This record gives sequence, structure tokens and C-alpha cells, in this order.
Amino acid sequence: MSEDYRDMWKNLGLDLEAHDALLEVLGNAYQDIYMTQQDRPEGMGYFDFVMSEVHGLRIKELMDKKEAGQKIIGSFCVFVPEEIVLAADAALVGLCAGADFAMEEVDKFLPRNTCSLIKSAFGFNLGKVCPYIESADMIVGENTCDGKKKAYETLNNLVPNLYVMDIPQMKSIEGRDLLKAEYMRFKNAVEELTGITIDSARLKKGIEIVNNKRKAVHRLSILRKANPAPLSGLDALLINQVFFYDDPIRFTDSVNKICDELEKRIEKGEGVLPKGAARILISGCPMAVPNWKLPWIIESSGAVVVGEESCTGERGTRNLTDDSASTVDELMESIVDRYFKVDCAIFTPNPDRLNHIEEMVKTYKADGIIHYGLQFCQPYLMESMSVEKAIEAKNIPMLRLETDYSMEDVEQLRTRVEAFVELLSFRR
Amino acid sequence: MSEDYRDMWKNLGLDLEAHDALLEVLGNAYQDIYMTQQDRPEGMGYFDFVMSEVHGLRIKELMDKKEAGQKIIGSFCVFVPEEIVLAADAALVGLCAGADFAMEEVDKFLPRNTCSLIKSAFGFNLGKVCPYIESADMIVGENTCDGKKKAYETLNNLVPNLYVMDIPQMKSIEGRDLLKAEYMRFKNAVEELTGITIDSARLKKGIEIVNNKRKAVHRLSILRKANPAPLSGLDALLINQVFFYDDPIRFTDSVNKICDELEKRIEKGEGVLPKGAARILISGCPMAVPNWKLPWIIESSGAVVVGEESCTGERGTRNLTDDSASTVDELMESIVDRYFKVDCAIFTPNPDRLNHIEEMVKTYKADGIIHYGLQFCQPYLMESMSVEKAIEAKNIPMLRLETDYSMEDVEQLRTRVEAFVELLSFRR
Repeated sequence: MSEDYRDMWKNLGLDLEAHDALLEVLGNAYQDIYMTQQDRPEGMGYFDFVMSEVHGLRIKELMDKKEAGQKIIGSFCVFVPEEIVLAADAALVGLCAGADFAMEEVDKFLPRNTCSLIKSAFGFNLGKVCPYIESADMIVGENTCDGKKKAYETLNNLVPNLYVMDIPQMKSIEGRDLLKAEYMRFKNAVEELTGITIDSARLKKGIEIVNNKRKAVHRLSILRKANPAPLSGLDALLINQVFFYDDPIRFTDSVNKICDELEKRIEKGEGVLPKGAARILISGCPMAVPNWKLPWIIESSGAVVVGEESCTGERGTRNLTDDSASTVDELMESIVDRYFKVDCAIFTPNPDRLNHIEEMVKTYKADGIIHYGLQFCQPYLMESMSVEKAIEAKNIPMLRLETDYSMEDVEQLRTRVEAFVELLSFRR
Repeated sequence: MSEDYRDMWKNLGLDLEAHDALLEVLGNAYQDIYMTQQDRPEGMGYFDFVMSEVHGLRIKELMDKKEAGQKIIGSFCVFVPEEIVLAADAALVGLCAGADFAMEEVDKFLPRNTCSLIKSAFGFNLGKVCPYIESADMIVGENTCDGKKKAYETLNNLVPNLYVMDIPQMKSIEGRDLLKAEYMRFKNAVEELTGITIDSARLKKGIEIVNNKRKAVHRLSILRKANPAPLSGLDALLINQVFFYDDPIRFTDSVNKICDELEKRIEKGEGVLPKGAARILISGCPMAVPNWKLPWIIESSGAVVVGEESCTGERGTRNLTDDSASTVDELMESIVDRYFKVDCAIFTPNPDRLNHIEEMVKTYKADGIIHYGLQFCQPYLMESMSVEKAIEAKNIPMLRLETDYSMEDVEQLRTRVEAFVELLSFRR
């Protein structure tokens, strides 16, 4: 960290000693995994800086705005519509959930057989090491999977400001009605929190900012079609992760800047890995900061990740919100339409996801798919079996992995990934 | 089996050899667990007979009615309204899900970390040993937990007649609207299947039959308040299990008959276990035939089970459906009202369940609670932790167990149950 933020952290109620330990682990991991990469685009410097200041400058910036009256809303999921948050001049931030922390404490509140993502969110909260959760004026939970749905009941006793949003399970008329009602309720809650009435001009502005952010990552994704790949999967994941934390306009500019640079690289035929490297599509569960385990294993095994079918990837960002309507109610309908398309495995059935995976394989010229399943994440683990059957029937190789946030299985995973990468090389 | 049903089973497509093996295991387990009990009421003879003919006479009876035009609807859950099924002269049967079978086959379709109940349903289907699933004209799945919701997508490829019912996750206005819409859709589907239009007289009759069945088990439950307990928990569970299979009118008569007998026993101060035996309330996941493991361990440890807060117990049966309305739509509203009260852990929040547990402890004068959680059943395992905190705050002892359908952990469970029973004895 370039400044001393200890007073700020102390005022936020962080456990300074534990937080120091976390930052050290995080910093070391970033050095080992990110800074050892070769031939990174210069534009990644911005994201390196963001990561180095993720608990520092970004929090200071949020706290300064908070002092000026802005509200901070924390979220665990891509179903929370940022358009509505921005329309009320509030900030939406993703809450920490990518590493094991304070697991002994977590075990008092959650069953052993709970996925790492949920346990991590509790660990950062119980361990008092997440400045985002501490600075948030409202924390939004959503009834997506059983694990989160039931965990929020417990979290509600641990934080003073949890708001729970219901989410449908089927893409039926009643399912859409439920999502619409919940987004209207959320809009009211955000209005109440901020004291700002969301009119159509504000909502249009919110949609524009979020759409621009999405368009920038779409532009970046398309550049990854190139061979050799102009950007590592690790760096692409980082950008997708920063999507959830950063000021949206600055983020959009920074992504567009790196795209300009990558276009030049592609013209010159430059890449981050040799042209012959096996191209992998990652599909499955989200990867929150600092969960870089799988792309790190893949890319240190000589392959390159060319796309993420994930909430921290295209599942979260691929569709734009139609901003052509003029009334608040019509714009809200557009927002509902946009999010109702998200092909999360909590939906049954969920054929769009399979179509999207196949489409991504074609678009990014992937040689194979690695399915990333978090242990005890029932929706994705169950869906991975039918996805695998369908994908292999189309003669696309797929490796199904199940893991957690620990580093104990790294060598075991590496052995399987290396074998898969070798298989892909034989097939070319 | 008192008759030779082999032709019937063969015609249903059962794997006769595997089915023989299953019946032998089932018969032996029943002998060891049920027939070794002391001082059982004579009225249990009926239920012994039902169990001995569960794949025989009951199936023959259903097949005979089927030949005469009746339809058979199979279900995995207490959210499927039997009132509607009976109103169309169809029969509702619970589908086999209480034992491990054909697990090697199941592993090809479901992740390892899937609960035993779901795996068992698949195993009985894949192993071709369940005459109920084979004879059903319609199999009803329901979007309750993530595990079932996603498993039905796979089951849909394995059976020709799966119907999936959506279920809400919150007891909100939109949640109730969704349940209403789904029950109307189900009514239409049942009408289409049977060719019978459900009018108010039919629906009233259906409600009456199911209510009478519930009233009979309520009467039985109340008798279990007596000390010494007039009926074992094993026998009560069996009656609750047969609730899902038997002809409803005959079942009601048989339960009332055993109640008459128990009333006399209670007058004479007779019980199945000594008066001082620790009284246990079981709370948690359902126990389908032949899953008698936990009550067997408890009762062979000298305690007696006095109530089941479970789908195979009061959670499934406790509320009646109001039959006072006169139109089909009003009666459907009453049905929705009744089922919307079911306090399954899939709902968030689910405070009614905790209230019901506390109420049952008082009503049945339980000394303690054993929470039965199926491994990987996220809703009940997660809820069990907050239930335990709340229950222990009221100074009611609670033991939280997590298990599956295997018998490998019986001695380990027995050790914990015995220690808990001993603790309860010290407290008295």
C-alpha cells in the first residue's frame, strides 16, 4: 500500500493484525502468480495498481464519497442490478469471498459441507478483514442457491444492514413476475437508503454507465479470439474481478485503453503465450479475488485461458440493458429482461448456458473446456454432469474439476490439467 | 410375499434378480428391526402386512385399478397436493427413496456429494427395482432444494413421464402467487391425464379423504403424549411412511383402529418402553422406507421417540385443508393456503419450523431433540445450526447428527446417541 491507511481501517472496525496478515498473503500471492507473468500488456499496470490498493486507495475513495453523502451497497452476486444503484448515485461493490479466512470461526456458523465462496464471505466478515463489508451501508443477499439462501439467515444476525432479494428458479411467467417485483422493491429500498428518487433520466444514466463497462469487456473478450492470445487468462480474470470493485467509468476507460494496446499487439502477431498453446475455456463457478488458483495452474501448464463462462466472466457481463425506453417502468422492464437472461445453474432447466458454452468454444477457438466446480456447490456440480455429456457428444474435450479455496490439492489438479493439456495437443 | 407376483413385476419391467435381492434385504431388515420389538399393539399387524406386501399386493391392487382406468401419480415430496389427485379418482404414491441401490450406476448421473435420498430415487429407477415408479402414469418432481431441482433435469432423460412443479423460496405475496399458479397448472395436468374435470364436489371429496387421513395421524400423535409411550417411534414412523403408499381410506381406518387399541393401553398404563425411558423428538430430513436407521438406534439405546418433526411426520401432515368453500377456485385457494404453511427448510426465513419444534417438545413432553440431517442436504443442515442455537438457548438438549443411508456409521451414531440419552437421564 502506498499510503498508511491504518486509521481508516481501525475506524472501519477491522482487526488490524489479522488484516496485515491477510494483506501479506494476498500481496505474496499476487507477486508469485501475477508479477511473474511474461510480456504483460502495459495497460495491466492500472489493474496491478488497483489490486495493490484494493483495501487502500479504493476504500479511501469510497469513504471520501461516503462523507460527501454517497451510499455504498455491497453485493455477492451478479443478480443485483448495478443500474439501479448507480441511478441513485450510490456505489455497488463486490464483497470479499475468494480466500479462506477465520475458518475456525466460520465452522461455528456454517456446516462443514458448505462451499468455499460462502464460507469465505463469512470468514472475511467474522475475521473483520474486509473493508468493503464494513463500509457498506446496505449488504444485498439474494436467494440463488440453497447454500447462500440459508446462509443469509445466519448473516442477518451478524451484520446490521442485510437486505435479501428473492430470485426465481424457473424462467416462467411467474418467475419473471417475481424478479420484476423484487427489482421494484430493491429500487424502493435504494431510494429510501439514498433519499434520491430514481427518475427515468437517472435510470438511463445508470444503464449507460453499466452498459459501457460491459461493452468495454466485450471488446476485450473479442480480442482474445486472436492466436497467439494477446492477454493471459489470469489478467483477463483480474479485469473481470476488478469489474466488481472499481469506479465504473474509470474501469471502462482502463479496459478500453488496454484494448487499444492489445489491438496493436495483435497486428504485430504478439502474444503472451506461444501460438501453439492449447486454448482453454473455463466454465463453472465464479472466482472472486484472490481465487486465481485454476487459471494459474492452467497457464503454468503451458495452456492459455481464452474465455470464462462464469459470473466473473461472460455470464455476468454478456448482455446489455436496453436503454431505448423512456419511462421508469419501461426501463425497469428492460433491466428485468436483461437479468432474467442470466443463465445461472440455479435455474431449471438451464439450456441457455449449454448453448453459451458451445458458442464460446467456437468464438474463442477453444480446444477444450475445464469445468470449475466448487466443492458442495450443488447447482454447478450437478449441471456439470449433463453439460459434460452434451459437450462430449459434440466431440469437444472437457475436464471436470471439483475443488475449494485451499492450496492442498494444487499438485493433484496440476497433474490432471497437464494431462488434459497434453490430450488437447495430440488432437490438434 | 404371499402370492407370486413375478409376472406382474416382469411386465412392469423390473430387474427380477436385483428385485429379489432388494426384497430379501428389506425383509431381513424388517425382521431384525421391527419384529424384534416387544409388546407391539395388535393393530400394527395391518402395517406389518402392508410392508410385507408393499411391492406385491399393493402394486397388484394399483394395477387392477389401473386396468379399470385409474391413473397412478408418483411423488417425491409433501408439496404435491393429494387432494387434487384424489379429486380426479387417481392414486398418489410416494416413490422409493430410502435405501442405497445401484450406486455405481447412480454415480454416472449425479455428483458424489448428492444426498442419499436423491441418489436412492435414482438408484431404484436405474436398477429397475421400484414397481411404483414403473407403474406411475405421471411422476411429479418439485423444485424444492437445489439437489432435487437439478436432479429432475437428469431424471427427465431417464423416465418418459416427468412433470416438474415449481415451488417458491419465500413466503411472500409473489411466492404464494407462484404456488397458486403451479397448483392450477397441476390441476389442469391431472385433468388432462385422467380425462376427468375436477368440479367442486370432487375437490371437496378429495379434501375430505386427505383430511381424514391427517386427522387419524393427529389422533395417533396425541396418544404418544402418554407416559409410558404406548407406541414405539419405529412403529409411528412406519405408519407415517405407509401414509404415502396405502389406499387412503383403508389407511385411515387402520390408524383409527390402532388408536382405539392405544387408548385402552394408555388407560391401563401400558407402554412399549418403561415409563422412565428418555423421550426424544426427531427433527429434520424425511425418512423414506426402509430408512429406519436412526429411530432404531435411538430405541435400541433405551430411549423412545415420541414425535417426528419431519416430512414423514408432522411437517407433512399437521395442517388440514379448509373444505368450507363452495367453488373450485375457493377450494384451490384453501389448498394453496394449507401447503404454503409447510415449514420446509427450503423457505427463507423459516421461523415457523422453530416454533413447531418447540411446540412439539412441549406437547410430547420430549426430554431432548435429535436432529437428523442427511449428508449434503444443504437446507436442513444449514438450518440445523440456527435451530440448535435457538433450542439450546431455551435449555432444551439437542444432538445434531449428519448421516446417510449406509450402515457403516451405525456404531459411531450409537455411541453418540447413547451418550445423549444418558445426558437426558441425568437431567431428569
